[in-house]
Amino acid sequence: MKKIKMGMIGGGIGAFIGDAHRRASRICNDYELVGGVFDVDYEKSKEFAVMEGISLDRCYKSVDALIKAELAMPAKERMEVIAIVTPNALHFPFAKKFLNNGFHLVCEKPMTITVKEALELERLVAKNKLTFALTHTYTGYPMVRQMRDLIAKGVLGTIQRIDAQYYQGWINAIIHGGGTRITGVWRLDPKHAGASSCMGDIGVHAFNLIEYTTGLEVKEILSDLNSVKDGIKLDLDGTVLLRFSKKLKGVIRASQVCGGLENDITISVYGSKASLRWGQENPNYLYMFSDSEPIKVYKPAHTYNGKLAEEGHTMPSGHPEGIYEALANIYKGAAKSIRKQKFNPAEFPTVHDGVRGMKFIHAVVNSNTKGNTWVKI
Amino acid sequence: MKKIKMGMIGGGIGAFIGDAHRRASRICNDYELVGGVFDVDYEKSKEFAVMEGISLDRCYKSVDALIKAELAMPAKERMEVIAIVTPNALHFPFAKKFLNNGFHLVCEKPMTITVKEALELERLVAKNKLTFALTHTYTGYPMVRQMRDLIAKGVLGTIQRIDAQYYQGWINAIIHGGGTRITGVWRLDPKHAGASSCMGDIGVHAFNLIEYTTGLEVKEILSDLNSVKDGIKLDLDGTVLLRFSKKLKGVIRASQVCGGLENDITISVYGSKASLRWGQENPNYLYMFSDSEPIKVYKPAHTYNGKLAEEGHTMPSGHPEGIYEALANIYKGAAKSIRKQKFNPAEFPTVHDGVRGMKFIHAVVNSNTKGNTWVKI
Amino acid sequence: MKKIKMGMIGGGIGAFIGDAHRRASRICNDYELVGGVFDVDYEKSKEFAVMEGISLDRCYKSVDALIKAELAMPAKERMEVIAIVTPNALHFPFAKKFLNNGFHLVCEKPMTITVKEALELERLVAKNKLTFALTHTYTGYPMVRQMRDLIAKGVLGTIQRIDAQYYQGWINAIIHGGGTRITGVWRLDPKHAGASSCMGDIGVHAFNLIEYTTGLEVKEILSDLNSVKDGIKLDLDGTVLLRFSKKLKGVIRASQVCGGLENDITISVYGSKASLRWGQENPNYLYMFSDSEPIKVYKPAHTYNGKLAEEGHTMPSGHPEGIYEALANIYKGAAKSIRKQKFNPAEFPTVHDGVRGMKFIHAVVNSNTKGNTWVKI
Amino acid sequence: MKKIKMGMIGGGIGAFIGDAHRRASRICNDYELVGGVFDVDYEKSKEFAVMEGISLDRCYKSVDALIKAELAMPAKERMEVIAIVTPNALHFPFAKKFLNNGFHLVCEKPMTITVKEALELERLVAKNKLTFALTHTYTGYPMVRQMRDLIAKGVLGTIQRIDAQYYQGWINAIIHGGGTRITGVWRLDPKHAGASSCMGDIGVHAFNLIEYTTGLEVKEILSDLNSVKDGIKLDLDGTVLLRFSKKLKGVIRASQVCGGLENDITISVYGSKASLRWGQENPNYLYMFSDSEPIKVYKPAHTYNGKLAEEGHTMPSGHPEGIYEALANIYKGAAKSIRKQKFNPAEFPTVHDGVRGMKFIHAVVNSNTKGNTWVKI
Repeated sequence: MKKIKMGMIGGGIGAFIGDAHRRASRICNDYELVGGVFDVDYEKSKEFAVMEGISLDRCYKSVDALIKAELAMPAKERMEVIAIVTPNALHFPFAKKFLNNGFHLVCEKPMTITVKEALELERLVAKNKLTFALTHTYTGYPMVRQMRDLIAKGVLGTIQRIDAQYYQGWINAIIHGGGTRITGVWRLDPKHAGASSCMGDIGVHAFNLIEYTTGLEVKEILSDLNSVKDGIKLDLDGTVLLRFSKKLKGVIRASQVCGGLENDITISVYGSKASLRWGQENPNYLYMFSDSEPIKVYKPAHTYNGKLAEEGHTMPSGHPEGIYEALANIYKGAAKSIRKQKFNPAEFPTVHDGVRGMKFIHAVVNSNTKGNTWVKI
Repeated sequence: MKKIKMGMIGGGIGAFIGDAHRRASRICNDYELVGGVFDVDYEKSKEFAVMEGISLDRCYKSVDALIKAELAMPAKERMEVIAIVTPNALHFPFAKKFLNNGFHLVCEKPMTITVKEALELERLVAKNKLTFALTHTYTGYPMVRQMRDLIAKGVLGTIQRIDAQYYQGWINAIIHGGGTRITGVWRLDPKHAGASSCMGDIGVHAFNLIEYTTGLEVKEILSDLNSVKDGIKLDLDGTVLLRFSKKLKGVIRASQVCGGLENDITISVYGSKASLRWGQENPNYLYMFSDSEPIKVYKPAHTYNGKLAEEGHTMPSGHPEGIYEALANIYKGAAKSIRKQKFNPAEFPTVHDGVRGMKFIHAVVNSNTKGNTWVKI
Repeated sequence: MKKIKMGMIGGGIGAFIGDAHRRASRICNDYELVGGVFDVDYEKSKEFAVMEGISLDRCYKSVDALIKAELAMPAKERMEVIAIVTPNALHFPFAKKFLNNGFHLVCEKPMTITVKEALELERLVAKNKLTFALTHTYTGYPMVRQMRDLIAKGVLGTIQRIDAQYYQGWINAIIHGGGTRITGVWRLDPKHAGASSCMGDIGVHAFNLIEYTTGLEVKEILSDLNSVKDGIKLDLDGTVLLRFSKKLKGVIRASQVCGGLENDITISVYGSKASLRWGQENPNYLYMFSDSEPIKVYKPAHTYNGKLAEEGHTMPSGHPEGIYEALANIYKGAAKSIRKQKFNPAEFPTVHDGVRGMKFIHAVVNSNTKGNTWVKI
Repeated sequence: MKKIKMGMIGGGIGAFIGDAHRRASRICNDYELVGGVFDVDYEKSKEFAVMEGISLDRCYKSVDALIKAELAMPAKERMEVIAIVTPNALHFPFAKKFLNNGFHLVCEKPMTITVKEALELERLVAKNKLTFALTHTYTGYPMVRQMRDLIAKGVLGTIQRIDAQYYQGWINAIIHGGGTRITGVWRLDPKHAGASSCMGDIGVHAFNLIEYTTGLEVKEILSDLNSVKDGIKLDLDGTVLLRFSKKLKGVIRASQVCGGLENDITISVYGSKASLRWGQENPNYLYMFSDSEPIKVYKPAHTYNGKLAEEGHTMPSGHPEGIYEALANIYKGAAKSIRKQKFNPAEFPTVHDGVRGMKFIHAVVNSNTKGNTWVKI
């Protein structure tokens, strides 16, 4: 099948997230990276293009230059989709331009800096009938999809509590010195990261996982954020109380200062009959607890899983796939949408998830600023 | 060595917590159960005494009768310590009588119904120079003690976040029907359980573990409780935000309605250099995470542990001990205190922990009643 | 209920296995330790008796003295059962004397030094209609019992492979120096330990677990043993091929020189439909694997378990019990037998298991001596 | 950098291993699949080429046709490397032809059917100075590489026991019916699979992992194989005793009939000071046990790892990579070799590993045929 021609904004030398997007696009095998603006520094951008084997003709000086040149090409040659993997603050202006010019988008999260921007993108996607995939990568894991499927089938009974955690420790190296992974310092600067560090970068993933797996919407939140150290302007840690309905509550906990923690995302949904728990560091294991039966551990590549989970794992059971494959699953879903093939809406997060995420982040910041009060989402 | 003569209030036929206390006292081998009031129903109490091989002479009709008869005996024969394992509401009146009459106590938690009662017991213990052991059993696990030891040594750097969870699912069987473990219904009745079900029964354990392992005091809390189902008068689920200081926050999550969860207590303390995590269902594993070294898993019966941990495990490494041994460790500590031997204050929780616990429970209930506002402890 | 009066041979100061037996007997609450010969050194034996609160009248100089004095007592006062916890070579002569004089026995394994001795004990037990409990402690774990139950029910389909491992590392400290747990050096001396160290001490446990859980008999074995270091006279490590029938084979691996390993006993039984796996260091988890269903994890204190498993766990689910409780379960079973109560033969290993074990050990040594050939059991 | 032009033999529609090779080659991004012979049925081969977006010009009718046509192209256009992913029996004749015509090879294992063939390939690789990568994929996992590195540094002290397991259950579905994954039936036919099923397909992986991680050579083996069911001509299960030297022994256990087991490969190397254990289903965890320190768990993407391990993981720590990335690491190493770049010999298994594997398989079959006797490798 013909590959979808893709451009990329950001993701040049040393940017791990850009590399992840490229790998994922190659794994799913539906895309061909043909050009982009890989770095604000044009020389570095070209250096990257050479390294990657991309034609310098399509290594552009700017997003405007890219759009102009690509639109001038015949439709068959033109980039159809753009992957935006820049720092947060640039997502919106670039996304807007691309949507206005008819390009499909794959965009890193958080989608924008403000809710207003997010709503604007949502409007443009609808208006121009474009595909917009937001890379909440964790929803690409087969066992997250199976979790959604089991919950939709009602196996948990009445959902009674929802609890998600996202703990990392890497910012300790930046704020205290001496660590081993010092990238992403821009995340501490409100100009580049937006209103929040911890909740904007990782808390929002937990939020998204909750809404993705349960199909429920968080109605109100109350947050308590912590900048941890004097002089830090953004939250590096926090807890968010959640209300889904009068009798259903939950909590999101997120932190970037849990010394030694790597990428510890866990989601648990507790019901009257049974409960489900999934953790990202061992993504091929989904645990179901119930009072009347042994604990059940679901794994990919089994006929007991639903179709959505099964399509997200290509190896036979016992051959672990990982995060690149999860991201590839999202790319795969977006490709189906771009190609106007049939797809399950659960195959990739959309601009609407981006809107929800921005609302969440802003509600969290507002609640904290107002002295830990309830704020509607 | 001569055994300490012990009496027991409550804990008759079918009461698993009384059985646990007796086993623990036998494991540590410092006590001899000589009598008590095992049931409000005297006939059942006697039936139990016969079953247990306890002389009917010392199977008393009431606490008053017990006190009178025992005080009439020569000191060498008399009960020295009483284990109180009744429903919550009876802890205080009985404890008060025993303290006023010179008996040492081992008491189940929560210690009392009100903070005032708790303070009264604290006053009596101090005044009468008696031993009062509150059975926050989890502090008896060797790896909890090792956690306390490592934190005291400063291996975590600055503590930056504290997070404890206590999830069970057994109350689902009571509120929804159909389950397999229907005991303890009195816990849903404010008259017997006090102001709280979930926080009073299990949340307070999480609170105690936090203060025990870190040596820190919770200063303020904000709670959000959930009665889960219409008609239920007490909390069955809740989240409590914690403040230790301006830059140190934490959270306690507790629930009795997590379908299929058994007794999932986990405590995590996150620092600038490293973090520690311990979970009760696999009590012989303590995990330390740090950025610069492999994850370290501490187990009992190793010379790398501190003295307090090592004394709490008698088998060679790899031979798992469990909850009875943890409770036996607390009995062992109390025995040292009763015998005026040297002991480490970390060997058993005291009446002061009981006061802290009651303050916590009441602050949690108040915060929730006042619309989720901050309340000082 | 009246306690069974028990004596103990061996198990004095510093002997961890004697302490384990005493704790187990107290946990199950059916026994009262009234005397014994706790040490070959009479002074040390008395010192121990004082420490333990045992009357010096019944702290005897020798087994002969014990037998004589106890038989002279009225039946109601007399020891009914003796726990033998001496080094291996003394099990037989003492056991024989006790059986000839009408005492029930609880005996540590390996039961004897030779097969002939084992058969002699088996004969005496039968002749005198006495209870003989061999403390293959691991069969007392509830999930081992559940494993036996599930296999008996046929849930695995045709059994196709059986694999048991018992790995420890503690002998490294003795043969290489520098370790932290230097006890049990007598195990390296054929005079005290018998024909085998590794297989006699721990391999035989793996063998017993296989026959216990499957109900099958090993027919032939081929062994390859390793003394690991020049100058060591006994095996410290080895592998044993097993044949149950023409199409059912298996393997036992055991070692005392696996650096850092603690007490890593695992048994796996693989069938055409499903497989079961249990490991001693996490004894409350039993794993079932099957192609068509999620992995199932069985835990104690659930109605889905069989009666034998359920009676072996007294706490509610999620409250971990450990090795003392496993040993207590065996003491509990022996007490039922001594009291002529109804019991399930799976409640404690008998003299027949001891005979099987001795045959196994000797076949293993013979096979190795003969150049790794097949030897019938 | 210019991509290496690659051809593929086998791996057409429905062949999961061919798909795995293609994904891996795309992940590492050093290759471009330009053509091949994807199926014995030319129509199916073309169908596959179209699906995959490969030019039909280079979808050849036969290996001979491919060689002829490719050699006729200018060197810059020509395939440089061929991936052979056919059934076992075809590896040798195709590999021989390609080596004789100057093509580098990536070849699935087992490399050949006979030892003689293997030696012939080794000779041709040396003679023609070509790169030959044998896809023992598990050596591409970062933590396997770290294991090799730690052992080479001597952290285990004297190695005293080596133990590898490879258990699967998928053949149950074929021999008993009713399963969910019925592919690979050719593996039961000696004509296509060679002399062995279980040992040839998976036992040889365990053998390779042992020699890879320890740097030691197995000197002698004694095997006991099991065809499990009447009418089956090859081994589906077996145990192999290993001798490395007089005082160092080990064992390989492999089975395809362990009901419900997926792909359970574990390797453990036990030393006088410490031991290491790694299992494929959780490939990002490497466990070190020692008597004097807590268990250490190594994970990828940490500065405490060696260079070889670190280069094999591209995501930050806590973002799990899987088997495709492991295979991509081997492709990456082969690419360095093909491009005459500097590389570590541990980056990919070579034709020599293939020779060792064939010697192992044949020794195993011989030992079993001769009645379980020792056979030199």
